[in-house]
Amino acid sequence: MTTKKEQQAILKPSKEVEEVGKWWIKAAAASREHTSLDEARDFNENWASLTAEPGGVDYIEVDAGGVPAMWAIPKGCTENRVILCFHGGGFFSGSMYTHRKLYAHFAKAIGCRALILHYRRSPEHNHPAQVNDSLAAYEWLLNQRIQANHIAFVGDSAGGGLAITTLLLARDKGLPLPAATMPFSAWFDMEVTGKSMETNAEKDLLFTAEGIKEMAGMLLGANGDRKDPYANPLHADLSGLPPVYLHVGGDEMLLDDSTRFAERARAFGVEVGLDVFPGMQHSFQMAAGRAPEADDSIARFVDWVRPKLGLGSHS
Amino acid sequence: MTTKKEQQAILKPSKEVEEVGKWWIKAAAASREHTSLDEARDFNENWASLTAEPGGVDYIEVDAGGVPAMWAIPKGCTENRVILCFHGGGFFSGSMYTHRKLYAHFAKAIGCRALILHYRRSPEHNHPAQVNDSLAAYEWLLNQRIQANHIAFVGDSAGGGLAITTLLLARDKGLPLPAATMPFSAWFDMEVTGKSMETNAEKDLLFTAEGIKEMAGMLLGANGDRKDPYANPLHADLSGLPPVYLHVGGDEMLLDDSTRFAERARAFGVEVGLDVFPGMQHSFQMAAGRAPEADDSIARFVDWVRPKLGLGSHS
Repeated sequence: MTTKKEQQAILKPSKEVEEVGKWWIKAAAASREHTSLDEARDFNENWASLTAEPGGVDYIEVDAGGVPAMWAIPKGCTENRVILCFHGGGFFSGSMYTHRKLYAHFAKAIGCRALILHYRRSPEHNHPAQVNDSLAAYEWLLNQRIQANHIAFVGDSAGGGLAITTLLLARDKGLPLPAATMPFSAWFDMEVTGKSMETNAEKDLLFTAEGIKEMAGMLLGANGDRKDPYANPLHADLSGLPPVYLHVGGDEMLLDDSTRFAERARAFGVEVGLDVFPGMQHSFQMAAGRAPEADDSIARFVDWVRPKLGLGSHS
Repeated sequence: MTTKKEQQAILKPSKEVEEVGKWWIKAAAASREHTSLDEARDFNENWASLTAEPGGVDYIEVDAGGVPAMWAIPKGCTENRVILCFHGGGFFSGSMYTHRKLYAHFAKAIGCRALILHYRRSPEHNHPAQVNDSLAAYEWLLNQRIQANHIAFVGDSAGGGLAITTLLLARDKGLPLPAATMPFSAWFDMEVTGKSMETNAEKDLLFTAEGIKEMAGMLLGANGDRKDPYANPLHADLSGLPPVYLHVGGDEMLLDDSTRFAERARAFGVEVGLDVFPGMQHSFQMAAGRAPEADDSIARFVDWVRPKLGLGSHS
């Protein structure tokens, strides 16, 4: 039993996780002020400054079936278990560098390797370049003799979308599917219709509905189909997907992307878990190694995914 | 011939390099406000946010003769040529992580591997722990069958000191010496007596004489010898050292550490080069990959050191 005071202590965001919110305030201001894509991308390249260095992890760049990627290899990990990692950044920004430390934290805690993709970005490359790159990297992994059931997907924000749409493409091409997928703060809805767009509009320190629509336009093109299931899995047939575990911040405008996806996946008979983190902002896991909330989220993912990868429970 | 306007354009610091000055202003404020060593170290861990990601470089942690270290290995480099890198941070902060990108820029431009040391820090470990760790790593490198004349040293700030004192210790132990050393924004003077301590007191955005004396105290202990030549090479016999190339910012309080060392080394018959970069702050090279001044400094080091490592001049 926790006391009321303890519960309040739990509910009050840590000083460390508030750095994520401060970052988003700066990002939102930069996005209002910046006119050029290059400036927005440059700004986002320092996103990684939120994340502590995990240490004890090696980083090797590799060509993963034509897609630039980075191995993050924790010392002493089980090398034949792999998480395939899809970074966020609205499809137009972010990189294998911005998410190097974040996904190295996941890999180190799971005790496996991480392959962090550097997929082609919008608007230079419209959908389906991103999901095609992701599928190519997954096929490359299978060709490296990594068993499908020894692979899990994980992705944040736009990358959370890819952690689902890549599954759909793999399934429809008849490939063996990975053991599990872990989208967090996922962006699924290219129509931008979630109720949390309004109910969390004041709490979310980063997004505006207009900004999300603009990113959808960069990804899909002005006339692209906002209901294309390989870009918007809220319109997809989700049957046959492996277990999904979603995390999302309670203060996110994208909250309902996760709640609606979870409901739909359950209706298709998919094993689904969803954790909503009260008071948390978009992709608060970027404070990994610094903020207890970020580390708690990663620890929950780790406990969930290790048995699915045949690594057994933590003692 | 450059026109007056062009000269002014050259002398005016770039917007990008001014980020280094802004960082130092924050660091100086933090150092005034922070009481704990942990907070100062945490602040400094984000120092690397000044540096662009070089890309195309792999990073492998290694035990280098008992000293934690990181290999930075540019794709396609000449692997049997190595720069041994000593990070800055006043001996009490900084790490192989804060300087990962900076020294990867050096390695990539030279076309060699970098071994970035993670030596023991003050005040938990007083001098000579730092120079002993550095020597142990150098001996380890030699035991990896890297020829001494295929190794160069490089270090910034406190690490610039180590890039000299490690040579002295190696010489006095009868080890073969590396081909060259490149200290920049080096801190040599544990007595803090340079005239630039006063003449650049207003221009230097980071340091105070008091602050430097405090760092000397953390390194040497309250009663430690400020003239110990293995800590303060301005009091050392410099005979027999390999070629030295120093870079320093014209606005640094540590300017005279470099000018006095250059003068002394020449008097001992050492081949010495010294470039003063007008208007530049301490360790402005941290803006590598972003600021033209930082990239210019690195390019000059590269042109100077490549032939010394038997790599030939750039075409």
